[in-house]
Amino acid sequence: MADVRKKPVGVFDSGLGGLTAVRELRRILPHEDIVYFGDTGRVPYGTRGRDTIIRYAKQDIAFLLEKDVKFIIAACGTVSSTLPHEYSDALAVPYTGVVASTAAAAVEATRTGHIGVIGTPATVMSRSYERAIRALRRDTTITAAGCPLFVPLVENGYFDRGNEVTHLVARDYLTPLRDAGVDTLILGCTHYPLIAPIIGDVMGPDVALIDPGRETAKYAKRALASSGLLNPDGGRAEYYVSDDVESFHRLSEWFLGEYTGGDVKRISVDEYEV
Amino acid sequence: MADVRKKPVGVFDSGLGGLTAVRELRRILPHEDIVYFGDTGRVPYGTRGRDTIIRYAKQDIAFLLEKDVKFIIAACGTVSSTLPHEYSDALAVPYTGVVASTAAAAVEATRTGHIGVIGTPATVMSRSYERAIRALRRDTTITAAGCPLFVPLVENGYFDRGNEVTHLVARDYLTPLRDAGVDTLILGCTHYPLIAPIIGDVMGPDVALIDPGRETAKYAKRALASSGLLNPDGGRAEYYVSDDVESFHRLSEWFLGEYTGGDVKRISVDEYEV
Repeated sequence: MADVRKKPVGVFDSGLGGLTAVRELRRILPHEDIVYFGDTGRVPYGTRGRDTIIRYAKQDIAFLLEKDVKFIIAACGTVSSTLPHEYSDALAVPYTGVVASTAAAAVEATRTGHIGVIGTPATVMSRSYERAIRALRRDTTITAAGCPLFVPLVENGYFDRGNEVTHLVARDYLTPLRDAGVDTLILGCTHYPLIAPIIGDVMGPDVALIDPGRETAKYAKRALASSGLLNPDGGRAEYYVSDDVESFHRLSEWFLGEYTGGDVKRISVDEYEV
Repeated sequence: MADVRKKPVGVFDSGLGGLTAVRELRRILPHEDIVYFGDTGRVPYGTRGRDTIIRYAKQDIAFLLEKDVKFIIAACGTVSSTLPHEYSDALAVPYTGVVASTAAAAVEATRTGHIGVIGTPATVMSRSYERAIRALRRDTTITAAGCPLFVPLVENGYFDRGNEVTHLVARDYLTPLRDAGVDTLILGCTHYPLIAPIIGDVMGPDVALIDPGRETAKYAKRALASSGLLNPDGGRAEYYVSDDVESFHRLSEWFLGEYTGGDVKRISVDEYEV
């Protein structure tokens, strides 16, 4: 019988933002094999409607299941906030999104109990982070803001700390949260860690920024360990995208920190049954 | 036998930008029935790779052919620049993109022979406008610039003339064209007419801005008239999108000027054979 431990961990995102989670997984779980799917042919998800997001996420998951993964991580705030639990609970392999572990980290970090959430419009409208936070601690105040332009700004390279455009957009989106007095801010989309310095400049040095990729990688390590699924001797990575592989080669270093090797292939994800 | 004249004109775009062409069609061809498809579930096209754009465009066209249209307009600079002529020439109905008529209008407008072209990265890389302009007039100088953030900025409502963010991004993109001294600028994407005032503020009052939706509508009128296909008594419109219809209802007035009526339905365009 095949050793389940040696199967890969499947990670997917609407695009390449989920690679910020892969970077963290690589760091704390260097012996896992990883299969990553980035839906670069249909990014962004977070400004689309709920039915569309669910349909796309189901196709992404169908692809990872075909790759025989042992564990699935939706490294995408939008999918994590939108895919119904009834669906993910019924999958043949364990599944996690980014919301629960990120919410837990925020509850641990806050001193005043006032937590801010930023994400795509779909994430904010779903109120997923609010529910997850309140389930852990009832006496919290939550202020949320949708930031639809952050993903295209990051994907077009507007993320250097001195970028005036992104700074202005961040001020538009974040000033209400800063003025409301949040002491902890959930970066509820895996693209946002790339502009954490700009977000930090607007929010000020006393606000703790919570990175969903990092928190979810830590959760995945605990989950794999507790179920005896840690891989003793893997470490490879395979990347799949739904647009040309050129954009992966051009953009992936931004998210991965450094390109960590591994083949990149293109697939037609819309041919997978939902 | 069915009266071909009474069949609808099919118009499609990656999203809702093509509605700027519908607005012009409505104005100069009020008796045509129009079937519009906006691929809002996969917008934007212009930052994706060539193979992906061609695949999506073929599915869009397959949908319009199923609606039994008499004429197809790709009201999308990216598709017009990317879909091979061999494919569109072989279609069962006449087809036009926006490039040829827009290039002709620019050649007519320029006094100095120095024409600027802005569009999505895919449009600019294709050099489609340059080829079309040079085919009409060889002694032209052409300066082109890709503007990847204009589509997301427009789709997120950052288009008011006083918008500081869009003004800054426009300065980033357009300063090289202004400094190069173009006297005519092709707005090579059907989203851009919405920010024509901002583009005009950066370029200065002496630069003529060419709107592809307007030029293509004029071309369509001539083409329908010369082939005896003008509809004597139509005027209805049907709209189809691949994301939730809510976003159409929210955004369409920006592009149409005013909502001109007509049903809006959602379809699964990725199920059409290419």
